[in-house]
Amino acid sequence: MESLEALQDRYGLPIVFQFVVRLYGGGDVRGPLLSAIAETGAVASEMQLEEVEAPSGDLLYSLLVFTRGDEQMGRVREAVEVVEGVSIVEVIDIAMESHRGGGCEMRSRCPIESNTDLRIVYTPGVARVCKAIEANSDLAREYTAISNKVGIVTNGTAVLGLGDIGCVPGMPVMEGKSAIFWEFAGISAEPILVDTHDPETFIETVATIAPTFGAIQVEDVKAPECFQITRELDQRLSIPVMHDDQHGTATICLAGLYSALRRKGWTMGDMKVAVSGAGAAGTAINELLQAAGVGDVVLVDSVGIIHGGRPERMNPAKEKLAKESNRDNISGGLAEAMKDAHVFIGCSQPDIVSRDMVRGMADKPILFPLANPVSEISRPDAFDAGADVYADGRYMNNAIAYPGIFRGALDSGTDRITLKMMMAAADRLAEIVPEGELLPEMMDPQTHASVADAVATAAG
Amino acid sequence: MESLEALQDRYGLPIVFQFVVRLYGGGDVRGPLLSAIAETGAVASEMQLEEVEAPSGDLLYSLLVFTRGDEQMGRVREAVEVVEGVSIVEVIDIAMESHRGGGCEMRSRCPIESNTDLRIVYTPGVARVCKAIEANSDLAREYTAISNKVGIVTNGTAVLGLGDIGCVPGMPVMEGKSAIFWEFAGISAEPILVDTHDPETFIETVATIAPTFGAIQVEDVKAPECFQITRELDQRLSIPVMHDDQHGTATICLAGLYSALRRKGWTMGDMKVAVSGAGAAGTAINELLQAAGVGDVVLVDSVGIIHGGRPERMNPAKEKLAKESNRDNISGGLAEAMKDAHVFIGCSQPDIVSRDMVRGMADKPILFPLANPVSEISRPDAFDAGADVYADGRYMNNAIAYPGIFRGALDSGTDRITLKMMMAAADRLAEIVPEGELLPEMMDPQTHASVADAVATAAG
Repeated sequence: MESLEALQDRYGLPIVFQFVVRLYGGGDVRGPLLSAIAETGAVASEMQLEEVEAPSGDLLYSLLVFTRGDEQMGRVREAVEVVEGVSIVEVIDIAMESHRGGGCEMRSRCPIESNTDLRIVYTPGVARVCKAIEANSDLAREYTAISNKVGIVTNGTAVLGLGDIGCVPGMPVMEGKSAIFWEFAGISAEPILVDTHDPETFIETVATIAPTFGAIQVEDVKAPECFQITRELDQRLSIPVMHDDQHGTATICLAGLYSALRRKGWTMGDMKVAVSGAGAAGTAINELLQAAGVGDVVLVDSVGIIHGGRPERMNPAKEKLAKESNRDNISGGLAEAMKDAHVFIGCSQPDIVSRDMVRGMADKPILFPLANPVSEISRPDAFDAGADVYADGRYMNNAIAYPGIFRGALDSGTDRITLKMMMAAADRLAEIVPEGELLPEMMDPQTHASVADAVATAAG
Repeated sequence: MESLEALQDRYGLPIVFQFVVRLYGGGDVRGPLLSAIAETGAVASEMQLEEVEAPSGDLLYSLLVFTRGDEQMGRVREAVEVVEGVSIVEVIDIAMESHRGGGCEMRSRCPIESNTDLRIVYTPGVARVCKAIEANSDLAREYTAISNKVGIVTNGTAVLGLGDIGCVPGMPVMEGKSAIFWEFAGISAEPILVDTHDPETFIETVATIAPTFGAIQVEDVKAPECFQITRELDQRLSIPVMHDDQHGTATICLAGLYSALRRKGWTMGDMKVAVSGAGAAGTAINELLQAAGVGDVVLVDSVGIIHGGRPERMNPAKEKLAKESNRDNISGGLAEAMKDAHVFIGCSQPDIVSRDMVRGMADKPILFPLANPVSEISRPDAFDAGADVYADGRYMNNAIAYPGIFRGALDSGTDRITLKMMMAAADRLAEIVPEGELLPEMMDPQTHASVADAVATAAG
């Protein structure tokens, strides 16, 4: 049987259910059953015989059903229910089931199997450790977990593509990030829900508990508040602060761009890059690309190109972008921004880039349309319009970058994650990329170790 | 060889070092070596041969050395260094070494071994979970770790017996508590250092991040601030809040008292109990014992008996105690408080109870002198003066109570830990106590499961 991964890739049907069905009396109605599922547009994996029930002879089969979501799933259920000789025993939502009980947990690193163990882990033994740290605060790095801990702080105002759903509904994302930190970089990452919409309260709260952690990851906080929050925390705290939606995304984009330019023989300084979306990601990409030497970056939001002469009112973050823009009076929208550009990067809305806009770009352009889950332009449309390199948000995954960035920052003991460190991470990613790819394999532990090494070296 | 635990118990020498020594050329100087250690008053365990080094024939031995602390340890080191034919290869501080890297870590509960795993743990699969919780907030209990998480919040102002050492030096204690929560009750307990001396800021900070957790344990916050902090958080939050130094200690005291009364055939209502120390523990013990029906509780601090007519200025917490006291005009100190008392409970200072004070108590009294690490009166002195039941702070360990209390509270979904729940915990502990003991065995998982069950039942 094909792997779940291969099946998901093949069908592009992200929501997977496990079905357990009963076939009465041993009658083989697998054919009609699979046909009924196929008619809904969903795809069923091979059926596995789980059990023959005695004395009825009923057969229990399980199979995976790949769907676009609940609506299609409802149709599958209805279709199966009318097949003669079949009943549904159980339908398991694979994603929900995997998150049951949560994605991460705080465990002991010290087994407690005797009173002696307890006297070492806790009182009186622990008092020695406390006193040693009180006398020399540097020892906290060695004798507590602080220097291996990242606080993942969110107020749930920009959770994935779901918007301001609140911090508790956002928790599964934070737990997912924590799981990624642990699995890819051995980092103890603790989700902290900061239940406020006020940036000042957010900043004060995180600053007050910051000694708990070796670094802070600001997560899924909406723009423009995320800029103030990240900037002020970074200035106030003596530990690294990074906003993944800004800096993780920017690092991955730069890495992908390094790879693409290498492949095409183009150079940074000659590039014109159009960035669609001036939220967290777009703003940070603009900054990092300029720092990396891109000659010309045009930033465009839903109103139009951002520049110093734009009459529309903008929030302070955009005002700053406008002031820093190298364009004074280019008006127009996305099509104008993309005109003659070598590179398009999208952090905005599904399907807003037309084939004509791509045709208006420089010859054989590079497209990174990252909007999630549906990108600014589909792969077939992009290639049809002349694109030479294409990567969407599923490919350009931040999780390739941030575990190693934090690992390197924690290991180096740096108090800040700088543009230099992000560029070093991007450069290293492009260096270790396999033939024919833009980014290295996320599942390869060497990827994260390499990024960590590059970042720690850049931290000096 | 005796277990480390038996050796520690036998010698009462809490600080243990592991020595690795080289005996040159195979000469057997074990005798002189052990004698040299013994002369310092420290105790060495049996020596274990670790290695015979070729070609020198040097022998590497390891042994554990039990000491009272660093000073005695320094003398051991000096004594060993002058023994002919011996050199010290390594000295390992067992407590420090056990805490290296910290006591707890946040781990993934979802293995990520493929891109499919990642798409389930993280995007796009996780979005389903977020949307489900957004639509029905009760689902957060099921599909996040929140309902299994305790936030251990501290500002480090009353860490063990060490006082206000600050929150970072207090971290090893919080990590130790987290390890205990995990090992005894499977609870994900996360230390949060709240870096402020201001109770209002402490309360605001914890309230803002409270949605992260299923319960809050206030830990090692000094009196009287701990009262305001615990009370206000308990009132504001819809999750249980408990201050272990208050409620954990009180629960253990009540459990021990239930056991002792059962053994002696005394009844609660007839008891006069003298409590020394009106800090976090003493105050909570006073409240819980009164709720449990103790007839007469006298609370005494360093100034004297706390009562309504006392002229000395007191902080608001003590004013409240004084107002609630059933004594209006009894002055005097500890000796007066203990006069004719059946029970003495100490949460105060080492060695402040004299044999004469015990002789002034009712016949064959119960003594729980809990001051740590040196109690209000030693076991030999207490028995010499007529005590019938004696248990110090090492025996009356809060870790027998709080893991089960939180487990029960979390499992029941209650929003508050009440006196009724603490009484139920104490009662159950006394019920399952083995013959000849006052409290059940902490290492027995059944102890914590029983407490959890009693607490969940009491929560209704």
